[in-house]
Amino acid sequence: MKIKCQKNKLQEAISTAQKAVTGKSAMPVLQGLLIIAKNDEITIIGSDIDLSIETKFKAEVLEPGKIVVESKLLGDIVRKLPSSMIEINTTENNSIELICEKSNFTLVHMNSDDFPSLPEIDENIIFSIEQKTLKNMIKSTIFAVAQDETRPILTGVLFEIAEKKLSLVALDGYRLALNSEEIDNDNLISEVIPGKTLNEVVKILDDEGNVDITFTTNHILINFGDTKVFSRLLEGEFIKYKSIIPEEFNLKVTVKREELLSCIERASLVGKDGNTNLIKFDILEDTMVITSNSQLGKVREELNIILQGQPLQIAFNSKYLIDLLKIIDEDEIIMELSSSVSPCIIRNAEREDSTFLVLPVRLLNS
Amino acid sequence: MKIKCQKNKLQEAISTAQKAVTGKSAMPVLQGLLIIAKNDEITIIGSDIDLSIETKFKAEVLEPGKIVVESKLLGDIVRKLPSSMIEINTTENNSIELICEKSNFTLVHMNSDDFPSLPEIDENIIFSIEQKTLKNMIKSTIFAVAQDETRPILTGVLFEIAEKKLSLVALDGYRLALNSEEIDNDNLISEVIPGKTLNEVVKILDDEGNVDITFTTNHILINFGDTKVFSRLLEGEFIKYKSIIPEEFNLKVTVKREELLSCIERASLVGKDGNTNLIKFDILEDTMVITSNSQLGKVREELNIILQGQPLQIAFNSKYLIDLLKIIDEDEIIMELSSSVSPCIIRNAEREDSTFLVLPVRLLNS
Repeated sequence: MKIKCQKNKLQEAISTAQKAVTGKSAMPVLQGLLIIAKNDEITIIGSDIDLSIETKFKAEVLEPGKIVVESKLLGDIVRKLPSSMIEINTTENNSIELICEKSNFTLVHMNSDDFPSLPEIDENIIFSIEQKTLKNMIKSTIFAVAQDETRPILTGVLFEIAEKKLSLVALDGYRLALNSEEIDNDNLISEVIPGKTLNEVVKILDDEGNVDITFTTNHILINFGDTKVFSRLLEGEFIKYKSIIPEEFNLKVTVKREELLSCIERASLVGKDGNTNLIKFDILEDTMVITSNSQLGKVREELNIILQGQPLQIAFNSKYLIDLLKIIDEDEIIMELSSSVSPCIIRNAEREDSTFLVLPVRLLNS
Repeated sequence: MKIKCQKNKLQEAISTAQKAVTGKSAMPVLQGLLIIAKNDEITIIGSDIDLSIETKFKAEVLEPGKIVVESKLLGDIVRKLPSSMIEINTTENNSIELICEKSNFTLVHMNSDDFPSLPEIDENIIFSIEQKTLKNMIKSTIFAVAQDETRPILTGVLFEIAEKKLSLVALDGYRLALNSEEIDNDNLISEVIPGKTLNEVVKILDDEGNVDITFTTNHILINFGDTKVFSRLLEGEFIKYKSIIPEEFNLKVTVKREELLSCIERASLVGKDGNTNLIKFDILEDTMVITSNSQLGKVREELNIILQGQPLQIAFNSKYLIDLLKIIDEDEIIMELSSSVSPCIIRNAEREDSTFLVLPVRLLNS
């Protein structure tokens, strides 16, 4: 192999492909990046088997070839090089020579035959969506995936297409996040993508251009720009989330998002009694009183609201409310409640694309 | 106690005094900040016995008093409050009430009698210097203090006044950093301040105004603006650093600082063989070749220099060179060397205030 390429392009490609390299695999070759030089194009692939990322860029290929180079070391070296042309040549003793201006590195490479093949996917695009939209949809839901592995399916995000609507859903037994967009598509899809995959995808999606999504029996292929992300799907049936979201409610609270977030954040500072992060809401006409107490002290916060319905007392784990109030970027939100033991629904006041659900904490005296 | 003050002033004072609270003390009262309200002024003190920081600001004192409040919780609460007036009152059951707009906190307080007294220092200013200058002098030396406690005196920075010159010196057995400023002062001083103290002092020194320094037998008092820092001194004799710095040299290299730093940083990426971070310099006429190798691979870097004297081969621990090249902010530096086993002196090419010394690594074949 003998190639010449721009430092910045190489650095960007390495940074993208590295997102799939977890460093946790027992296979040494998976600590590396597969570099393929062919037809004036360099392809770089990182993989941890479950997730693989392939990205390409134009370069001068003087001699085609395939090698695997330790990912972190290569990335660190390229990042520290001047913004100039980089030359990479294979030499004897399983080595490569990397030259940039007056810097000259010799590194061992691994055998590209040991690198696992990418899943064979017959690209048959199911739907196409703006990268920016998908990025926002993932960000609005992924925080709610289950962190523990007791029910593996809940560590993923459901991608559902039905009635010309794409919905992403994550839930963990205490809260749920649902985000929908209308799409011009007649498919019926219901697949669960690992949260780990989407955490990396969010980092490399751009603000411009489209992304094409293909599903096979076991895999999703996310294709955008010069990059393809291959991920296995989670097996099993997702929870029938629609039956969890109540359609009716007894009271509706309209409140300023930032003010509510500040009150809850302050209240949570003294509410860290054990792990419950318990805060109590006293929803009254025109005002909401938030209180919390522990051995550290107690706090009372008050804020203005618009209430439709009867007053109510209800308690929550403050962490779940803080998480979702940080995700929403609208000024005003709506809380829909029915009783102190029924789920609370939180929506944007203006847009209807996001629905969040949080279960209340049942108090001993309620 | 009953006080009213501005949130921003209170937040700033807490943040300053908190720098002395390490949270590592066995005395619970040292997790707290002592708050004293008297004569339209609030004084806040944090302490870990060895280091104490006292800071003052104007406020409305409706009822004087003294309390100790848990430092982290108080700081977190005040930071999250709106920029408005804060009212703090003591109430029954060893509690305080903290009110800001519609937020109302009740916190337990500790007994101010348990809080250790500040060292009694008869303020007798030894010298006065610009805050900005002292900050720069500390930053240019503190990185070289010893990290291990084998010789406790080396974990501090020497403050020396002699011949109308203030010098700060730190050394750890492998490298030395010396920074001097002329001052109009006839004292003869040689005291060692703990590195831990100066690490915190650097964070709170301003870019404007002077700082007054007083020494007693066991303590230093650093007084600037509304803040006083009290720290114990390290006991013992500092190393006679002047005898370590060679006055003569055989060769002198002038080199661009940033270019040298980049070359060393890149070379160190493959030089992490064990803990030596070994890199070799081949100083030739007009060029310097830096090489390094380990089981990861090898690297050769070349850069232009101006050499006065004979060529030389010498090896260093890259970490020590990287540390000091990051501290210097001049474009060009000068390296003065004599042999592959003698110390290397590094200075700014233009200013003469800083002197760094690094010991070479003796190679098996040298």
